[in-house]
Amino acid sequence: MSRQVLIIGAVALGPKAACRFKRLEPESRVVMIDQGEIISYGGCGIPYFISGDVSEPDQLQSTSFHMLRDPRFFRDVKDVEVLTRTRALSINRKQKVVAVRDERSGETSEMPYDLLVLATGSVPNRLPIPGTDLDGVFTVSNIEEAVAIRNRVSRGLVEQAVVVGAGAIGLEVAEALSDLWGVETSVVEIRDQILAGFLGRNLARMAHRHLQTRGVEVNTGETVLRFEGEGKVERVVTDQRILKADLVIMAVGVRPNAHLAREAGLELTPGGGVAVNERLQTSDPAIYAGGDCVEITHLITGKPAHFPLGSLANRQGRVIGTNLAGGNAVFEGAVGSWVMKIFDISVAGAGLTLGAAKTAGFDAASTLVVQFDRAHFFPEKDLMYLELVVEKGSGRVLGIQGLGNKGDGMVGRINAVAAILKDRPTTADISNLELPYSPPFSSAMDILNALGNTAENMLEGRNRTADPDFFAQCWEERGTGETLVIDCRAPRNAEPYVRSHPWHWKNIPQDELRRRLDEVPRDRKLLLVCNTGVRSFEAQRILDQAGISDTLNVQGGVAALKKCGLDPAGEQDDG
Amino acid sequence: MSRQVLIIGAVALGPKAACRFKRLEPESRVVMIDQGEIISYGGCGIPYFISGDVSEPDQLQSTSFHMLRDPRFFRDVKDVEVLTRTRALSINRKQKVVAVRDERSGETSEMPYDLLVLATGSVPNRLPIPGTDLDGVFTVSNIEEAVAIRNRVSRGLVEQAVVVGAGAIGLEVAEALSDLWGVETSVVEIRDQILAGFLGRNLARMAHRHLQTRGVEVNTGETVLRFEGEGKVERVVTDQRILKADLVIMAVGVRPNAHLAREAGLELTPGGGVAVNERLQTSDPAIYAGGDCVEITHLITGKPAHFPLGSLANRQGRVIGTNLAGGNAVFEGAVGSWVMKIFDISVAGAGLTLGAAKTAGFDAASTLVVQFDRAHFFPEKDLMYLELVVEKGSGRVLGIQGLGNKGDGMVGRINAVAAILKDRPTTADISNLELPYSPPFSSAMDILNALGNTAENMLEGRNRTADPDFFAQCWEERGTGETLVIDCRAPRNAEPYVRSHPWHWKNIPQDELRRRLDEVPRDRKLLLVCNTGVRSFEAQRILDQAGISDTLNVQGGVAALKKCGLDPAGEQDDG
Repeated sequence: MSRQVLIIGAVALGPKAACRFKRLEPESRVVMIDQGEIISYGGCGIPYFISGDVSEPDQLQSTSFHMLRDPRFFRDVKDVEVLTRTRALSINRKQKVVAVRDERSGETSEMPYDLLVLATGSVPNRLPIPGTDLDGVFTVSNIEEAVAIRNRVSRGLVEQAVVVGAGAIGLEVAEALSDLWGVETSVVEIRDQILAGFLGRNLARMAHRHLQTRGVEVNTGETVLRFEGEGKVERVVTDQRILKADLVIMAVGVRPNAHLAREAGLELTPGGGVAVNERLQTSDPAIYAGGDCVEITHLITGKPAHFPLGSLANRQGRVIGTNLAGGNAVFEGAVGSWVMKIFDISVAGAGLTLGAAKTAGFDAASTLVVQFDRAHFFPEKDLMYLELVVEKGSGRVLGIQGLGNKGDGMVGRINAVAAILKDRPTTADISNLELPYSPPFSSAMDILNALGNTAENMLEGRNRTADPDFFAQCWEERGTGETLVIDCRAPRNAEPYVRSHPWHWKNIPQDELRRRLDEVPRDRKLLLVCNTGVRSFEAQRILDQAGISDTLNVQGGVAALKKCGLDPAGEQDDG
Repeated sequence: MSRQVLIIGAVALGPKAACRFKRLEPESRVVMIDQGEIISYGGCGIPYFISGDVSEPDQLQSTSFHMLRDPRFFRDVKDVEVLTRTRALSINRKQKVVAVRDERSGETSEMPYDLLVLATGSVPNRLPIPGTDLDGVFTVSNIEEAVAIRNRVSRGLVEQAVVVGAGAIGLEVAEALSDLWGVETSVVEIRDQILAGFLGRNLARMAHRHLQTRGVEVNTGETVLRFEGEGKVERVVTDQRILKADLVIMAVGVRPNAHLAREAGLELTPGGGVAVNERLQTSDPAIYAGGDCVEITHLITGKPAHFPLGSLANRQGRVIGTNLAGGNAVFEGAVGSWVMKIFDISVAGAGLTLGAAKTAGFDAASTLVVQFDRAHFFPEKDLMYLELVVEKGSGRVLGIQGLGNKGDGMVGRINAVAAILKDRPTTADISNLELPYSPPFSSAMDILNALGNTAENMLEGRNRTADPDFFAQCWEERGTGETLVIDCRAPRNAEPYVRSHPWHWKNIPQDELRRRLDEVPRDRKLLLVCNTGVRSFEAQRILDQAGISDTLNVQGGVAALKKCGLDPAGEQDDG
């Protein structure tokens, strides 16, 4: 049986579905249309094209064997017909035709289908403020825009840039402008932390600080009011300051491009995406949809969610290709795995942050662990920072986030948890994850295993914790004298702190604690710190045994405090 | 309730169990005994101490915060008593006492217990041949031996070394001797491949070749007959040659050290390990055991297996610690995750190799995929080689092995599969693994996803494959003229091959194949190759459609052949 498959959209999901289908059913005909000129490109590579890491836009559109994925490629290699600059205007589901317009000639026509695929992607949000149409104000939604941005930057026309939005795309572009081109770049974010929804407060502090040490000014909790300039943008006016800017990038999220589906009467999700079942079929069985234009099931909350990610689009494309050919492939949903590079570090995660878990109605808590990324006796190593979000009571793991150096070690840990997250793991499953071990790659008790152990100890009340954020709050209020820090490290490490803050910081090395219990005050709340939180946990157990229980173990220890920019060593105390 | 816990063995599992138990039940007493002087060290770090990467043996015995884990440490920090140089002689289960001998004084005594933990580890196998007691012949089973080996090497006393056994330890030590100290090192392996049981034949070829390019001579399929020398070792005599040697390392595996358990009448496994249940309890409920002295369930075969790995010992130690305190923690078993560095590459795996799967009775097949480790348009990238072992029919995934550069990208992929392997994933689960994606770390369709897809296509008969090993065999027999290679790459890539082998190698680029079908001979078996196996798969589909079905797609393409040392480009053909 030869069938006619029509695919609207030829960037990520469309080509994947087309090729998979043709391999399964070579006798059928596939036509793919796209409103743009450039098709089948790696959109997630745009920041690396802007930076110059990727030298030509063609590279984003090429196969690994250097063939350009243009209409000729799809015809000769894949036997798929592609029409570019061709816009779908409406779908007539009864007649099974799509009205299209050739954007070159302006002519309209109708294209028939037996099966239709919607791969219409997403549209970038634009701020509802004055000045967004000034020259020099961009979103970063396609290659054409990226080329325009890089042209300006590479010709030296940009001295100062403002990125609005501290999400993944915004920060990647900020790094590209700042690091490779030396553009003075600042980021303005309306929420009170960067990467909201991706990182919890503590890891966000660390990433924020890293951006600042690399010269990117990040202003959180700040609202952009308007862009100003004569013809071209010159200034960004926020509720707190005026920033000079030759270039503005609006990176304030995207939303599903579902207007064709809506007008055709297909079911939509509450978030405005095309609604699909597990086979990625819309409410019309002859129409499939996937990628950025749909909402799929968030496998932690069970609710529809928008995951505009090229990786999911590709996997969904294959599922659709199989099902177009009469198969029965399913796409269950996603847990939201992600990773990004920020200068010299990587941040990554899967599932929910602590904040998102609470918003979703979970009675959630989180634990932070700091440990070397490989055997501590191995010469090359770095500290890694991982946060596990868990449900109290059940011990169910809801999410994980982490920060490490820019190598692959961080994403490798997230890989392991992302792989099991949909199957409702508990902390014990993390404790027992069987990660490959060898000193150049991991620890015998890897940081992931330690994370599961620590979360379990926290949930069972054995490890009563304070995160760096809470430590900062206590430290701010230390003037009341209610709190005392007990530093469980060796005297040489604790000494600068004790010297600066004699009334607030006391050193009792953990290995001396059992015999120095009478030095521990019983009338103050104790914050126990060591280098990473291991010895202070041990100290807490000793103090518990001695009946001293008003203690909190500072998670991640001084290493985490330093990474958050909260190190009190240098400050001079007035107390 | 205060109890007396006695632990025999203080290297990995013992200390972990002791510390976990003491945190849960601080009022109880724990005594740990060990026959050695040095306790609680990272045995897996020994090759890195021999190489000099780890400068002092103390570092293997220290915490990440530089405290030496000696008896004083365990007393002050952990409230655990340790007796070194104390050998357990026998267990009286009725009286609940262990007879011990102080190896310093020779005095014997009895130590009572309420609960006993056997952490007696493993003993290295020694070859049953003449000369193993010559000076200069070592196993690598403890720090004392490692110190002796490094002393010889660092004092310049070793010019030539022979390592017997090409398992993980043998190869790590060979690298240490060769790379850091410049010792002329050769490895002799009785089996016909290196890392048997860890890698399949194709990846083993690649790793073997890498060792040889780095100057380590590896002789497989060769049996050592005896060591010879006057007082100290001078020669290794095999069934094929005589190798000069100042130093011999026997790295021919280890076996559970279970003699105490056996003599006490505890149940053993067929492989000679202590038998334990999921709570890691022996056949005597008052006695727990774990680490190298037990066999645990292999979660793929369901049978008992010996996994002498520090990582598992640590996790088992925590389970025992919990259960000593009346908890109910379980250790289900292991899938056998592992990783090792070999000079500039890493090799890793989990579950069964193709050979092991067949031996275990599975109707198994495997697929090899070669792809970049990150987005192909990202400037820094390397090819990665992954093999997936699957059960025919069910599509169940039985194992994965891989080879990549020495970074963390390889182990990160294995992490993801190792995490789900015990839950009987199918190829679809690998295809849909939700790995975090960003161009600096991975591909939109990551190599792991591609591996699942390829395995599915193979199992469903759409991708009929030949692995490099089979290619080598066909190529060897090419004189018969039965086989023709169709090179689907661009002419510039294929040209050197066609020139050298005009009768055996023909170039039809895949994008021209549909219109050049009449050039394809129908009377010869066709081996389809491209660079990595993607275009040749596409070509196979086109040929199938044209009714030409006596074709095999060479997995991993020319990239895999080259990596295996099987590149026919340079050879001159007589055909």
